[in-house]
Amino acid sequence: MIFPTLDTPSVLVDLDIAEANIRKYQDYCDEHGLKLRPHVKTHKIPSLAKYQVAQGAIGITCQKISEAEAMIEEGGIDDVLITYNILGDRKTARLRALSERVRVSVVADNAIVATGLSRAFADAAEPLSVLVECNTGADRCGVASPADAAGLARRIAELPGLRFVGLMTFPPVGGVTSAADWLSETKSLIETQGMKVDRVSSGGSQDMWHAHLATPVTEHRIGTYVYNDRSLVTRGTCTWQDCALTVLATVVSVPSETHAIVDAGSKVLTSDLFGLQGHGHVLNRDDLAIDQLSEEHGRIVSSGPIRLAVGDRVRIVPNHACVVANMLDNVDCIRGTDIIGPVPVAARGQVW
Amino acid sequence: MIFPTLDTPSVLVDLDIAEANIRKYQDYCDEHGLKLRPHVKTHKIPSLAKYQVAQGAIGITCQKISEAEAMIEEGGIDDVLITYNILGDRKTARLRALSERVRVSVVADNAIVATGLSRAFADAAEPLSVLVECNTGADRCGVASPADAAGLARRIAELPGLRFVGLMTFPPVGGVTSAADWLSETKSLIETQGMKVDRVSSGGSQDMWHAHLATPVTEHRIGTYVYNDRSLVTRGTCTWQDCALTVLATVVSVPSETHAIVDAGSKVLTSDLFGLQGHGHVLNRDDLAIDQLSEEHGRIVSSGPIRLAVGDRVRIVPNHACVVANMLDNVDCIRGTDIIGPVPVAARGQVW
Repeated sequence: MIFPTLDTPSVLVDLDIAEANIRKYQDYCDEHGLKLRPHVKTHKIPSLAKYQVAQGAIGITCQKISEAEAMIEEGGIDDVLITYNILGDRKTARLRALSERVRVSVVADNAIVATGLSRAFADAAEPLSVLVECNTGADRCGVASPADAAGLARRIAELPGLRFVGLMTFPPVGGVTSAADWLSETKSLIETQGMKVDRVSSGGSQDMWHAHLATPVTEHRIGTYVYNDRSLVTRGTCTWQDCALTVLATVVSVPSETHAIVDAGSKVLTSDLFGLQGHGHVLNRDDLAIDQLSEEHGRIVSSGPIRLAVGDRVRIVPNHACVVANMLDNVDCIRGTDIIGPVPVAARGQVW
Repeated sequence: MIFPTLDTPSVLVDLDIAEANIRKYQDYCDEHGLKLRPHVKTHKIPSLAKYQVAQGAIGITCQKISEAEAMIEEGGIDDVLITYNILGDRKTARLRALSERVRVSVVADNAIVATGLSRAFADAAEPLSVLVECNTGADRCGVASPADAAGLARRIAELPGLRFVGLMTFPPVGGVTSAADWLSETKSLIETQGMKVDRVSSGGSQDMWHAHLATPVTEHRIGTYVYNDRSLVTRGTCTWQDCALTVLATVVSVPSETHAIVDAGSKVLTSDLFGLQGHGHVLNRDDLAIDQLSEEHGRIVSSGPIRLAVGDRVRIVPNHACVVANMLDNVDCIRGTDIIGPVPVAARGQVW
């Protein structure tokens, strides 16, 4: 039985693998002169954020103020980018408080957000650094055109309490070079208007090994690379051996020769599909598929005899590590076959 | 702005609606002589469990021991059915401890689970009540045939520390009457072997208004009916006005005339689809669809002009309430337009 002293379902994090993943990508960034700003939304664990910075990351990326608050609590982090339109007086007040503890930058893709930020920082000792978020094809947030980006940059530069520092994008998958073209054009346009574009921030794990092709990008944000997952293995970004996060589950029922039930359902594996079939990969069992999840049940099916017995344990690489890491209060840290102990997922469960 | 003093994304629970849902289904069960045993996995909140029992429920259903432990902590609950194969010495020891505080019953669909339960209860003052889980077509857990059910019932009756008390099933959607036939045949078979079948437990919210057709069922388990959700509205089980749980979200970006971004992504709405298109229903805006989720972004699209501005708030009925209620540490309770306050989701985030 695998890790018999752990209760299941457990989210296992192999620190040896996670640390190797962090070092490997830091080496890649160092080699290519890219600044690395890892996204902590994947792990939400301060000690991993500190390890990322200790290896050479210039700071961290957060998606919510509560993530940033949790990450800096223990010290060791002094530079945070929040890649989200922050809106509302309570949130901007928390942002202001955060900015008095560590160096903070944020993004905006519209004047309403910029105006709200300005209101909170108008009387601050230091202006808030703001990047303009650009839609380079992912069609999520972001200004629609280089001209719009230049217009918003000018607006930000004029607003009290704010400093325009650059551009930020989350490029579409496979869109590293097209995003780079978009950003280059925008940078030139803004510079011809007499403003400086100090930072150009791009991101994404799926094209992480092509990040260096994206001139004029100065910093790259990635999250999933710490843990990796089935979606990245499927894309060829990493191998199963690089997957630091697995879900340990127990077979609780084998109702037929070709199906078994494990105690990991959608409340730990989540229903994220990322375009894949099924709900994760059972390590060392390519013949199995997880074809259905209930909240606490995962159904494993096989084409041939299933070769699983009640009480057996399996390790599942989930489709998407970032959402799985968010499901339980603690992950169980391991190094190979050694159990290190539970570690709280500090930043989970918070509204904002 | 809707509920301007609440931060978003917030999981709102309208207690007026939840309590009305609880009373309405209790009335239905009372009218049809069905015992109601609500499943707390949906809300994981002790005060709601106590309200369910106060209205006439015979006890509660849990899917995990940690849920049961959290529910009985505050008192007011004295009867718990855990509808899961409980396996492993640590879990069965916790089950034993639970059984010394409240009346507990569990299920088993195989002899390995039954043997483990017996080991933990062999020297208990009272035997543990065990129901045989039957696969009536959902193809999740459950013995495969009435003959197998009878065999396992006999085995349970023979094992020290256990008492066979009946049958349990989670029927397939639309399968209330076929499941009833299966259970009737099994009950007869077991009774002809000289054993009593005191309890027959069925469940499911989707066919909740047909539960009375399922003779020989003695008790019905449902969870989602407390909150309801888009999947149940789509199935015709309830209306939008019966949906007690909504996600309050703020529009943070309107990048084009036909798309907007809200601050509710897969880390609050989850990716559960339940066979539906899109990720929830924006209340009072039938013209909108939520076509894509990132972790903290939800993308709303419209066929015509989107008529949303940055800073607007929307209320979203999720596809599946049970998983959404599990995502944040607290839900914000309301009654209509009055804010009651945050309530901890006591049983979330636990391994087992």
